[in-house]
Amino acid sequence: MAKDFTKRADNYSQWYNELVIKADLAENSAVRGCMVIKPYGYAIWEKMQAALDKMFKETGHQNAYFPLFIPKSFFTKEASHVEGFAKECAVVTHYRLKTDENGKIVVDETAKLEEELIVRPTSETIIWDTYRNWIQSYRDLPILVNQWANVVRWEMRTRLFLRTAEFLWQEGHTAHATQEEALTETRQMLDVYAYFAENFMAVPVLKGVKTANERFAGAIETFCIEALMQDGKALQAGTSHFLGQNFAKAFDVKFLTKENKQEYVWATSWGVSTRLMGALVMAHSDDNGLVLPPKLAPIQVVIVPIYKNEEQLAQISVKAEAIKKAIESKGISVKYDNRDTYKPGWKFAEYEFKGVPLRLAIGPRDLEEGTIEVARRDTMEKATYQQIDIENKVEHLLESIQSNLYQKALNFRDMSTYKVDTWDEFKDAIENKGGFVLAHWDGTTETELKIKDATKATIRTIPLNNPQENGKCIFSGKPSTQRVVFAKSY
Amino acid sequence: MAKDFTKRADNYSQWYNELVIKADLAENSAVRGCMVIKPYGYAIWEKMQAALDKMFKETGHQNAYFPLFIPKSFFTKEASHVEGFAKECAVVTHYRLKTDENGKIVVDETAKLEEELIVRPTSETIIWDTYRNWIQSYRDLPILVNQWANVVRWEMRTRLFLRTAEFLWQEGHTAHATQEEALTETRQMLDVYAYFAENFMAVPVLKGVKTANERFAGAIETFCIEALMQDGKALQAGTSHFLGQNFAKAFDVKFLTKENKQEYVWATSWGVSTRLMGALVMAHSDDNGLVLPPKLAPIQVVIVPIYKNEEQLAQISVKAEAIKKAIESKGISVKYDNRDTYKPGWKFAEYEFKGVPLRLAIGPRDLEEGTIEVARRDTMEKATYQQIDIENKVEHLLESIQSNLYQKALNFRDMSTYKVDTWDEFKDAIENKGGFVLAHWDGTTETELKIKDATKATIRTIPLNNPQENGKCIFSGKPSTQRVVFAKSY
Repeated sequence: MAKDFTKRADNYSQWYNELVIKADLAENSAVRGCMVIKPYGYAIWEKMQAALDKMFKETGHQNAYFPLFIPKSFFTKEASHVEGFAKECAVVTHYRLKTDENGKIVVDETAKLEEELIVRPTSETIIWDTYRNWIQSYRDLPILVNQWANVVRWEMRTRLFLRTAEFLWQEGHTAHATQEEALTETRQMLDVYAYFAENFMAVPVLKGVKTANERFAGAIETFCIEALMQDGKALQAGTSHFLGQNFAKAFDVKFLTKENKQEYVWATSWGVSTRLMGALVMAHSDDNGLVLPPKLAPIQVVIVPIYKNEEQLAQISVKAEAIKKAIESKGISVKYDNRDTYKPGWKFAEYEFKGVPLRLAIGPRDLEEGTIEVARRDTMEKATYQQIDIENKVEHLLESIQSNLYQKALNFRDMSTYKVDTWDEFKDAIENKGGFVLAHWDGTTETELKIKDATKATIRTIPLNNPQENGKCIFSGKPSTQRVVFAKSY
Repeated sequence: MAKDFTKRADNYSQWYNELVIKADLAENSAVRGCMVIKPYGYAIWEKMQAALDKMFKETGHQNAYFPLFIPKSFFTKEASHVEGFAKECAVVTHYRLKTDENGKIVVDETAKLEEELIVRPTSETIIWDTYRNWIQSYRDLPILVNQWANVVRWEMRTRLFLRTAEFLWQEGHTAHATQEEALTETRQMLDVYAYFAENFMAVPVLKGVKTANERFAGAIETFCIEALMQDGKALQAGTSHFLGQNFAKAFDVKFLTKENKQEYVWATSWGVSTRLMGALVMAHSDDNGLVLPPKLAPIQVVIVPIYKNEEQLAQISVKAEAIKKAIESKGISVKYDNRDTYKPGWKFAEYEFKGVPLRLAIGPRDLEEGTIEVARRDTMEKATYQQIDIENKVEHLLESIQSNLYQKALNFRDMSTYKVDTWDEFKDAIENKGGFVLAHWDGTTETELKIKDATKATIRTIPLNNPQENGKCIFSGKPSTQRVVFAKSY
């Protein structure tokens, strides 16, 4: 399988595209820009969902569901919001097909909607229209709601997981009585995302705010987590928006305060999407295929029998099933692949390519000697272990793999982070080195856009607790008080 | 809350509508026919999803995700399928909005799709187009895939949960090498649905097949589970379709058999939807509000403190928290409502209305005497229990409530099932009694439709293992070999 598989060093982009397809994660569908998420890919997404959903609930949120469609007029109510999304909307205009005189199925023009419906690209507008009826007084606040849903943004250039016309995500939408509480919520969810990225995906992230230019359409402040991929490009992995009273004003959502005054409600929204699947793949995988952190791997351990005849297989299977059971008792998912239609070598390559963290192999000699061969996917190391107490060894190895992947990604990021002070240094870093480039910037959108035009680099984030230091903007030479993080990005 | 709440006997339909809204399950949105599922309602749906998903996985299925949009041309490939769904399709025709000369947001006519996209009403077509690439040989079979998704059918008359333009569901789509295997799968999933309905929803169901006229558009045979609501109307709670080779032929999906021959693949599809929420509400609830079976109740037990001052509350809370913990150790969800903003009477009414199966109340005297008051939602009975070992008593009570609800619904169905032999008896039963009416039918669609025209009753199902007996069709008088189940339905 790995034979006709492009190497990262040869063509990183092609490596990614091939990997997603050959590892059975997803494929392009017959509908432009829309993907099919295959069972193996979806199983990883389900693990992501479960971990995130648990954290959302632990922080007091409840799930709900709002309509797929948004009336066009709702969109226009928040000016910057419509500006941000109008150019990439799927629009429903009719509600019926019919058979024409030639027997062809056509749109029934008599079934035209009075008002067009937009397939939601995000749900602030329909949700804040709903919240107007849910909120009368401070007693109704806060509302802490999340929804798991599909959304559509009509992207022109699409790539599996990274940028698709339809994608799956969660969007939290909360309503608060005070600005302070809404800001606390925004930051809390940023922390939840960062925790998830680092502890489940094993991907280190920078936490920070976006510049005005990179802000969500309709937000006062956008917080984000930014990850670095192996090709030195950044990937925005999650955002948490402080929306101020923008949507409350657009949809007239007021509440009676304890002091008996009418005030507009404060809002946040926050989301992560199937884009995380792309980040996961690009952060850890290698020229041998997927590398999955154990906490998100659908199969954490695979056991492969090595045998010459059915009698041997039968003997090995007894032992293998016992080992499987012992490991499963630790809450670890194990697959025992005793299929006779494939040879062990084929199976080894298959599970390696699919990123199964640990592979156990057991043959006739292992039966005699009470041993088992253990191979780690992350380091590709093999070792022979005693069968006794294998479940605890496996548990420790999985923990070790999880932390090793994180540490490796962190080391890579550290080595790929550059401080530069001049325009030439900046251009050299962006063009030849990649990675995060820390540089002074004069704080204007004008300069930001000129730098982007010249280098394709954007300001990924202004980190939280960013060290303050005096310097000069690498582009304009104007004074600056802090470095910001530039990079090319997905 | 129950004061301005319609009674079932007065207006069952209005009772249902009010209950869904007042119990915070769902509400109508600003988009015609689309609902907002509120957190309390969604929490019940999540419990349904979890139970079903577990059963799907235990029977070897995996989840995946297919596009929301279906190209119009796909629809036309299976003739009866398009006929079944063409009249209720949301059609996407454009992919961009723009600002016109008057500053108004309008559809950008230059951004017209070459081929219209249908928002999926069901996914057979897009999925079988995909399967063509997944299936080459018998080794690739079976494919056992399910997807959790939203679908859209442009219904003209909508009702919360029961019939909405957008709804949530799961749709299983499997591919098999033989007709026999596909039929076994179809029946297996019918059994899964029946098990879920009876053991989780506490709703007894009839298992059977649909008549040709009531069959899914594109199916060879549609199996269904049919439940009876308290007003004597039937509700189709789930369907499992044997699709034969219809979709394989329409999308040219062939496989190489073990004997090296090319054959079309055999298919099934099966689904249940948020309609089950409507069935759940209508099967058990009463004039005091929701009644939820413990296995699907988001809050299974609520503890309400009865106190006169803060000191008492503090003392009670220590005990209540200990009891909560003890009950939770049994895997039971418990809410301790110590909010000071509401009085106990208000809380009692609230949780009663929301169908919480068990309410525990604890006051100063209970502290002295080591007792606790326990109220069952299903029977409205109250009793005083010793606090000692309360977790086991609660566990048993919840089991008792679960089985009592099932038994009650089963008794109701038994009492509401009538055998009739003449047209007059039939009309009388349908018009004046309601329920399932077992009658002979001549097996023709013509007669079926005439009966429907005359009485609004349809054939809900021909039960599996239906007793065979000679008789005459109640409408045409022609010979018949078995009774079928007629009812008015949702």
